[in-house]
Amino acid sequence: MRTSYAIGVDVGGTRIAAGLVERKGRTLKEVRALTPAEAGPFAIVDAIIELIEGVAVTVHPGEIAGIGVGLPAQIDFLKQTVEFCTNLPLAGVDMRSLIMSRVRHPVTVDNDGNCAGIGESRFGAAKGVRDFVMITLGTGVGGALFLDGEPYRGSRGLGAEIGHMVVQLDGPPCPCGGNGHIESFLGRPALAARGRAAAAEYKGEAIRDEAGGDAEKVTAENVVNAALAGDEIARDILLDAGTVLGEALVGIVNLLNPKLIVVGGGIGESCAFLVERAAEVIDEHALAGRRDVRMVQAELGNDAGVLGAAALAFDEHDSREGLHR
Amino acid sequence: MRTSYAIGVDVGGTRIAAGLVERKGRTLKEVRALTPAEAGPFAIVDAIIELIEGVAVTVHPGEIAGIGVGLPAQIDFLKQTVEFCTNLPLAGVDMRSLIMSRVRHPVTVDNDGNCAGIGESRFGAAKGVRDFVMITLGTGVGGALFLDGEPYRGSRGLGAEIGHMVVQLDGPPCPCGGNGHIESFLGRPALAARGRAAAAEYKGEAIRDEAGGDAEKVTAENVVNAALAGDEIARDILLDAGTVLGEALVGIVNLLNPKLIVVGGGIGESCAFLVERAAEVIDEHALAGRRDVRMVQAELGNDAGVLGAAALAFDEHDSREGLHR
Repeated sequence: MRTSYAIGVDVGGTRIAAGLVERKGRTLKEVRALTPAEAGPFAIVDAIIELIEGVAVTVHPGEIAGIGVGLPAQIDFLKQTVEFCTNLPLAGVDMRSLIMSRVRHPVTVDNDGNCAGIGESRFGAAKGVRDFVMITLGTGVGGALFLDGEPYRGSRGLGAEIGHMVVQLDGPPCPCGGNGHIESFLGRPALAARGRAAAAEYKGEAIRDEAGGDAEKVTAENVVNAALAGDEIARDILLDAGTVLGEALVGIVNLLNPKLIVVGGGIGESCAFLVERAAEVIDEHALAGRRDVRMVQAELGNDAGVLGAAALAFDEHDSREGLHR
Repeated sequence: MRTSYAIGVDVGGTRIAAGLVERKGRTLKEVRALTPAEAGPFAIVDAIIELIEGVAVTVHPGEIAGIGVGLPAQIDFLKQTVEFCTNLPLAGVDMRSLIMSRVRHPVTVDNDGNCAGIGESRFGAAKGVRDFVMITLGTGVGGALFLDGEPYRGSRGLGAEIGHMVVQLDGPPCPCGGNGHIESFLGRPALAARGRAAAAEYKGEAIRDEAGGDAEKVTAENVVNAALAGDEIARDILLDAGTVLGEALVGIVNLLNPKLIVVGGGIGESCAFLVERAAEVIDEHALAGRRDVRMVQAELGNDAGVLGAAALAFDEHDSREGLHR
C-alpha cells in the first residue's frame, strides 16, 4: 500500500496540534487541544495520543508513513530523547517510546524549531534553498540552521538555539539564566516589559488602550497591535527590537554566510517593519560579499510545525525504506 | 609515481611561509620571506612562486600532489577567487590562475583561517574530531567551522568570520566598520589600546616597562608578557578579554553545539589563562547539555597554516584521482 500520509504533531507550551498531511504538504485533517502542562508527562502523552488517533482514523493505517513530533525542548536527535525542556515537564522523558508503545506507527521526535524549519524548507518560504537560517520570534526566540539541505543539530543533536547568543554583555537577564541574549531583547516578555514601561507614561496611551487601559497588563501583542494601528511609540519599541535582531543576524551572516534568513514566530510574522529594519541593518553592517542574503517572513504560520513534523516522518520512512528524496 | 608530498603556502599580512609536507604532516623543508605588501599583487605572486620553487626542488615534480595556498582574505572557494582582502591588495585578483600559470602543479586557494583549521584537524588539537570551532586570536580574530569533518564555508564559500559577531551593541568600533564585534575586544589593537591606557597610569609600570618605558608604544604582546611575568594589571586586561571571549563562545555553543573549541593565533596560544577564563564562562553560562564542550589551545602554532594548506592540496589531489580519505 502506498504511504501517502504522515502525521505531524506540534507540541507547544499552551497548545498541541496534530495534522494528517499528504506528501505534497496538503493537510487533510487537523485537530488541536490545550496542553495539560500542569498535569505531568503522562497527561501530555495522553493528549498527544488522542489527537493522533483523531486524525489517523481518516485513512487506512497502511497508508501512514509515520508520525513526527515537534517538542519545545532540547532533543538529542540521535538518541531520540528529551534532554531539557523549559516550559513542560518532559526533561528526561522518553517521549518517543511512550508514544510509539501506543500507536502502530514509527515515531520520530525533534525540536520544534527544527520542525518549523523543515516545514518552511519543504513547503514554505525556504523552498529550494539549501543553506538558510530560520529564526522564530515568539515567547522564546528559537530557530534552526539548514546547511546543505539538512537541519544542522550539532554534535549532540541539541538543535540551534539562536535565541541564546549574546548581543549585549551584561545586558538584561534572559530566561535561560544568561544575560543580554537575543531572547532578552526579542522574546515576548522583553517586548511586553518595554510596552508596560511605555504604557505607564502619558504618551503610551495607545498601548495602554490595547490592554484595556491597564498599563500593568500590556502584552507583546498589545504593543504589536498598537504599532500596526499607527502608534509611533509602539512602533519605536519594535524598530529598536528590529535593530537588535539585525545586529545579531549580522554576526550570524558573518559566521555562516547563509543565502536566506526566514523570520517566523508570532512576532516575526506579524511585524513586517521589524523584519525590514533588521534587513537594513544587515545590508549596512554585514561583511562585504554577504549582504546579498535575502530576508523574508515565514509563510506557513502556525502550520509550519505540523507540516515540518510530517515531512520529518516521511523522510524517516523513506530512509528506512531506502528511498531518497 | 607516488604523490608523497604537497606544498603548503601560508600568506600572511607580514610574512609568507611555504613548506614541503609529507602526507602524515611532517615538513621536509620550509622557507619564509617578508610579504611585499606595498608592492602590489604581482610582487606578492612573485614572492610566493620563489618560495614554492625553493621547496619544490627537493623532490621529483611527479611526487608532488599539488599546492595549497592560504590567503588572509575572503575566498569564494567554489570559484577559487579572492573576493575581499583587508590587509593585502588581492581583492579581485585571480591568485589561483596567476600561481598555476607559473608552476607545474594544481593549485587550490582557501581562507587562512580554514587552512589553520584543516591543519589542527588533521595533525593537531582537533585530530579525529568532526564537529569543532576554531577561533584564532591575532591581529584580527578569525576562525573556521568544521561540521561533519569538513570546513563549512557558507553558501558562497566565504569562510567563517567568527571575529565579526556582535557581543556588545554600540560597543567599541571594529576594523570592519561594525561595532562591538568579538574582534573589537580581542584583536591585538584592542588589547594594545587597553594596555596603553593602563600603562599611562602609575600602576601600569610593569606594562610600561615592557614597552621600554613608553606607554604610547605598548603592544598586545607587551601586555601578554607583563601578565606572564606576574603583573596583575596586565593579567586583568587579558582575563576581561577571556570573559568576553567566553560570552561570545557561549552563543556559538548554544547555536552549534560543538564538541571542541580550539583557540589559536598568537594571543590564543600564549595565554592559557585567557582561554581557561573563557572555558569557565562557557561552563557557567552555556545551555545545559552543551557544557561538555572541550576547549583547548591550538597545537601547531605558526605551522598550522602551511600544514593545513598542504593537507588541502592532498585532499584536492585525492578527490581528482577518485581516492577517498
